[in-house]
Amino acid sequence: MEKTMRGLVKQTPSQGAVLRTDLPIPQPADNEVLVKVRTAAICGTDQHIYTWNAWAQERIPIPMVFGHEFSGDIVALGAGVTGFRTGDRVAAETHIPCNSCCQCRTGNQHNCENMRIIGVHVPGGFSDYAVVPADCVWKLDSAVSYRHGAMLEPMGVAVHGVMSGEVNLKSVVILGCGPIGVMAVGAAATAGASKVFAVDIFDEKLEMAKKLGADVCINSKNENFIDVVLQATDGQGADVIIDYTGAAGLIESAFRALKKGGRFTLVGLPSQKLSLDLTNAVIYKEARINGCTGRLMYETWFQCTEILKKGKFTMDDVIGGVYRLEDYEKAFADIAAGRPGKMLFELEP
Amino acid sequence: MEKTMRGLVKQTPSQGAVLRTDLPIPQPADNEVLVKVRTAAICGTDQHIYTWNAWAQERIPIPMVFGHEFSGDIVALGAGVTGFRTGDRVAAETHIPCNSCCQCRTGNQHNCENMRIIGVHVPGGFSDYAVVPADCVWKLDSAVSYRHGAMLEPMGVAVHGVMSGEVNLKSVVILGCGPIGVMAVGAAATAGASKVFAVDIFDEKLEMAKKLGADVCINSKNENFIDVVLQATDGQGADVIIDYTGAAGLIESAFRALKKGGRFTLVGLPSQKLSLDLTNAVIYKEARINGCTGRLMYETWFQCTEILKKGKFTMDDVIGGVYRLEDYEKAFADIAAGRPGKMLFELEP
Amino acid sequence: MEKTMRGLVKQTPSQGAVLRTDLPIPQPADNEVLVKVRTAAICGTDQHIYTWNAWAQERIPIPMVFGHEFSGDIVALGAGVTGFRTGDRVAAETHIPCNSCCQCRTGNQHNCENMRIIGVHVPGGFSDYAVVPADCVWKLDSAVSYRHGAMLEPMGVAVHGVMSGEVNLKSVVILGCGPIGVMAVGAAATAGASKVFAVDIFDEKLEMAKKLGADVCINSKNENFIDVVLQATDGQGADVIIDYTGAAGLIESAFRALKKGGRFTLVGLPSQKLSLDLTNAVIYKEARINGCTGRLMYETWFQCTEILKKGKFTMDDVIGGVYRLEDYEKAFADIAAGRPGKMLFELEP
Amino acid sequence: MEKTMRGLVKQTPSQGAVLRTDLPIPQPADNEVLVKVRTAAICGTDQHIYTWNAWAQERIPIPMVFGHEFSGDIVALGAGVTGFRTGDRVAAETHIPCNSCCQCRTGNQHNCENMRIIGVHVPGGFSDYAVVPADCVWKLDSAVSYRHGAMLEPMGVAVHGVMSGEVNLKSVVILGCGPIGVMAVGAAATAGASKVFAVDIFDEKLEMAKKLGADVCINSKNENFIDVVLQATDGQGADVIIDYTGAAGLIESAFRALKKGGRFTLVGLPSQKLSLDLTNAVIYKEARINGCTGRLMYETWFQCTEILKKGKFTMDDVIGGVYRLEDYEKAFADIAAGRPGKMLFELEP
Repeated sequence: MEKTMRGLVKQTPSQGAVLRTDLPIPQPADNEVLVKVRTAAICGTDQHIYTWNAWAQERIPIPMVFGHEFSGDIVALGAGVTGFRTGDRVAAETHIPCNSCCQCRTGNQHNCENMRIIGVHVPGGFSDYAVVPADCVWKLDSAVSYRHGAMLEPMGVAVHGVMSGEVNLKSVVILGCGPIGVMAVGAAATAGASKVFAVDIFDEKLEMAKKLGADVCINSKNENFIDVVLQATDGQGADVIIDYTGAAGLIESAFRALKKGGRFTLVGLPSQKLSLDLTNAVIYKEARINGCTGRLMYETWFQCTEILKKGKFTMDDVIGGVYRLEDYEKAFADIAAGRPGKMLFELEP
Repeated sequence: MEKTMRGLVKQTPSQGAVLRTDLPIPQPADNEVLVKVRTAAICGTDQHIYTWNAWAQERIPIPMVFGHEFSGDIVALGAGVTGFRTGDRVAAETHIPCNSCCQCRTGNQHNCENMRIIGVHVPGGFSDYAVVPADCVWKLDSAVSYRHGAMLEPMGVAVHGVMSGEVNLKSVVILGCGPIGVMAVGAAATAGASKVFAVDIFDEKLEMAKKLGADVCINSKNENFIDVVLQATDGQGADVIIDYTGAAGLIESAFRALKKGGRFTLVGLPSQKLSLDLTNAVIYKEARINGCTGRLMYETWFQCTEILKKGKFTMDDVIGGVYRLEDYEKAFADIAAGRPGKMLFELEP
Repeated sequence: MEKTMRGLVKQTPSQGAVLRTDLPIPQPADNEVLVKVRTAAICGTDQHIYTWNAWAQERIPIPMVFGHEFSGDIVALGAGVTGFRTGDRVAAETHIPCNSCCQCRTGNQHNCENMRIIGVHVPGGFSDYAVVPADCVWKLDSAVSYRHGAMLEPMGVAVHGVMSGEVNLKSVVILGCGPIGVMAVGAAATAGASKVFAVDIFDEKLEMAKKLGADVCINSKNENFIDVVLQATDGQGADVIIDYTGAAGLIESAFRALKKGGRFTLVGLPSQKLSLDLTNAVIYKEARINGCTGRLMYETWFQCTEILKKGKFTMDDVIGGVYRLEDYEKAFADIAAGRPGKMLFELEP
Repeated sequence: MEKTMRGLVKQTPSQGAVLRTDLPIPQPADNEVLVKVRTAAICGTDQHIYTWNAWAQERIPIPMVFGHEFSGDIVALGAGVTGFRTGDRVAAETHIPCNSCCQCRTGNQHNCENMRIIGVHVPGGFSDYAVVPADCVWKLDSAVSYRHGAMLEPMGVAVHGVMSGEVNLKSVVILGCGPIGVMAVGAAATAGASKVFAVDIFDEKLEMAKKLGADVCINSKNENFIDVVLQATDGQGADVIIDYTGAAGLIESAFRALKKGGRFTLVGLPSQKLSLDLTNAVIYKEARINGCTGRLMYETWFQCTEILKKGKFTMDDVIGGVYRLEDYEKAFADIAAGRPGKMLFELEP
């Protein structure tokens, strides 16, 4: 094995990143594995780190190899690791649980009270090799490619939101058709939603949603999506609304499109406070609001795999671009320019 | 049977009401029963009607006999009524379902899309006799007195909120210790909560909560209830918070006392919009918010009966005063003066 | 309106039935409607009544018009009926609830403690006109034909079993591919099952299951279905097994095909006791068994409508034959001969 | 630290055991801790091993230190252990999960497909020191003594059965009042059951159940418990029945005491097949049967702690006897003689 490796490093407290080629290959400690990265995907969080916005400045110690959505092969095992072998094709779960807190010990490791995050608190996967705690390793099904494997983590965010309540034979509104939103469209359609409404303000994102199984696509710049939903549901509203935008105004108004007894799931993170009329939006409706973060470890990953194997849509349709690691500036520029879909780094085998 | 009866009537669009003694005794139509009223209880809604505030002005056609919390005996049956007999001791459910809408036909009659309300849209129970749709009649268990029977409807509001999610072996915070709040305290304690926190700003209401089973009583004028809850739960927060106040500021801040994965149930009706930081209050916590209105018809009534029969507390401790119908002005004055507990009218047998 | 009507009557305590043409047209009493029947479907129960087996002899008072799966138009309303009008296109729910018992008052009218059954305890729908309690009337969606409407009641049996627990993204085994079993296949596929296994001993019934969406069809005369299921699930077994056969031996063995933590739903009625190794079949597996009877009134009917409107399959593929009422002997003979699918009577026009 | 220790060893394939004093003190490997045992409790499984019955002969490799219910102090940590420190007061979870199988990765480690068991597959806790995987260590709340800590594992079996469905405001029948059954009585009462029926054939065990909170105690040798339950529930039957006996005949008949829509939870392990009339016992009743094994890791342990802290009963009342390890023959003899309650070994100091 080589001694050094490439890695995309947040090196200085300013816009951009540096592709270094002289990084030492890390070694797995107890209960960790070393992964040879094959494909990595770029998350909105990575864009925050790249542009070095306020969110990133508060959280990221530098220098740091970032990137937390990736797949590859296990090439070495630390002491104490069981259940994995070198050669296993795997993807990484971003959230490192402490295994000791009340959340971790009751099946909610994804919501650990002492959570650390790969690519934020410890080095990530925009590099030839990455160390991953065994707790955070998911073995890929043989039917799942490295590319799709690298997209399982964000797909899990989509699926966790969709599956956080009943969706089968229900009408479902998906707010926001970025990569996660469109995967949510595909998940809801696969999981038996009676009708899936997709809402966005970009036609090309709605086209992607259409491909993934949306029954009704609404460009909310041109149409009042609340009217469309109410009309399609005999004035009752949708059974389920799931937000992937975090847009305060949109969420506030969307309650009018929710059926009595309906579920409103929040995944997107509003950056400001919302002003809500709880009496009419929630109480008289007996509505339920539930927050979702991350993915269940690992029920959601099993569900993602079932969805991919069902094959009602292909994740290829979610890919917005594939780049060499060397072309990282172009990748981040394309995202900044609003190019739809998920951007991937493919590291040569 | 007499031909006329007494009835407390909202006669004019102004403060107050009139006790008339010349009202014709109503006759039950198809699927209705006639109830000889024995005890009636005064709701906050009745106070709105009495004082003729904006809420009442928008809703109440006058003249109207009001009052919707009452118990008594069936004395006549309309055509088509089955399952009831004259002589049955009963209480009234306030919400008249249409039985045709989607909510009614899926077990949610209490949240009917075409709801009418006794004492608001049709004559109520502050009178010697009242007509009640058979759908709205609840037979009293032999262990339940007329007085307690008249309090089952508001008790149902309390219990529906408590039982709208798991409460057993959970820590539960009850916000607001009016009559409904203290009955919620008793319900939560009976239903197996591990610890019940009661919050109010009046010591005498907290004393009532104590009698009904509160483990910790917090006067939020004197103490920061969030600190108390956090300290008592190792900093994790309570599993369940249930609001019976509708106080916007209190609800906004109370999320800080909620555990990750916790439930926040809303029963009290805020009269203004709330400003919520959903990202931290709900999403990162994976919290659930659920609205509750009315009571399940009739699962909640069965639960109320079980609670009363269990006898961990007595509803006598919730009674704030018992009045003759003739003394209605004093009754409403006592409520306006902040006297704690539920006020009852006792109509002579 | 005519004064007399046709009706298929169980007239004598022996095999067969008589088509009478001189029956008085019934009149709806309080809370009842009169339905002009358009299409009726033949249930296994009707076959019991026709052949006059032990089950029927114990239950059916004669003479009796039988048949309980039917659709048509409301032509008259009894007193007290609300929510329906003459001209409404409707189907009948078979189970007449008492509305007074604990089950009826907690959303389980379909499991009423004092249940009466249309076509068993009161005259049914193999006739030009039938009286139906308003509680048992379901308005057809405009997208649902009379033929499909007449099949909603048995479809509800299928769907209630499927939806009595989670099915989305789960592997589901359907035991028995009679009309109800194949409708369950279609329901499970529509509701988002990851894989549907259909099991029967007749190839032509399995072909029908295939048309309705089965992923794997197993003729259990030729193949060991347990082996097939285990092999397809990496040895873990299926998440859900639903029995529509009532075949004791089949059910006993099928637990070996159930995953740890799985659900085994029983719909078919075993005529004999089963011998179960609860320790290995249920306890060590933490399996759940749940019984299902009838359909939820009316959540299941809403779900059926959603399934039909989704259109992943057509109910036409479930129809085994369409007969005039006059040809009832042929219809019953075809069923006795094992002809697959649901047999319908079409009453002109 | 000493070099050798005492340990109760199953040494030969015959009745009995040997207390050895020359055993080497084991050393914790990766992800294991070493516990200085303070109190251990004797399980029915230990009695099987002691008497060397067929069950034990099939499973236990000899020689083997047995005993799997115990508490003590951590005195050494293997590599890779996080979240624990020497000096921590702890109890052991018996079930060693593989952490790799589908059950382990979806929150069901207690039902691992590759389960190993402390005191059966690896050395147990009837000894001065025991090695425990970190996954199987539970930190005792400061309010929980070593004695009560040693009883948490069997208490967990009781509580897992009780909490495997709703119990609050429900009537609950507990079949069997051995140590686990009576702890289930206490758990159900604490968790808000409306009425707890305890059934056994020994009066002294029923007295223990009474102390722990049973509302009705039924000696089924003298009374027909089904009649008693039906009479106390207006003929409807109990909401919940939980079996801790594994007695086939008792379970078969007990379904007659179950309410429509009720839950029948199976914890006791029948040693023979049951003969069940599923049509009447389960399907027409829409009953639910669910199997329970072990305890949730670690939700059940949190629940046990809440129950103990609630203090509606004291675990002292469940202790049947306390013995020195040297007196093991007397302890096992007392159990064999039918002495009620849980037998403990107290290891000095």
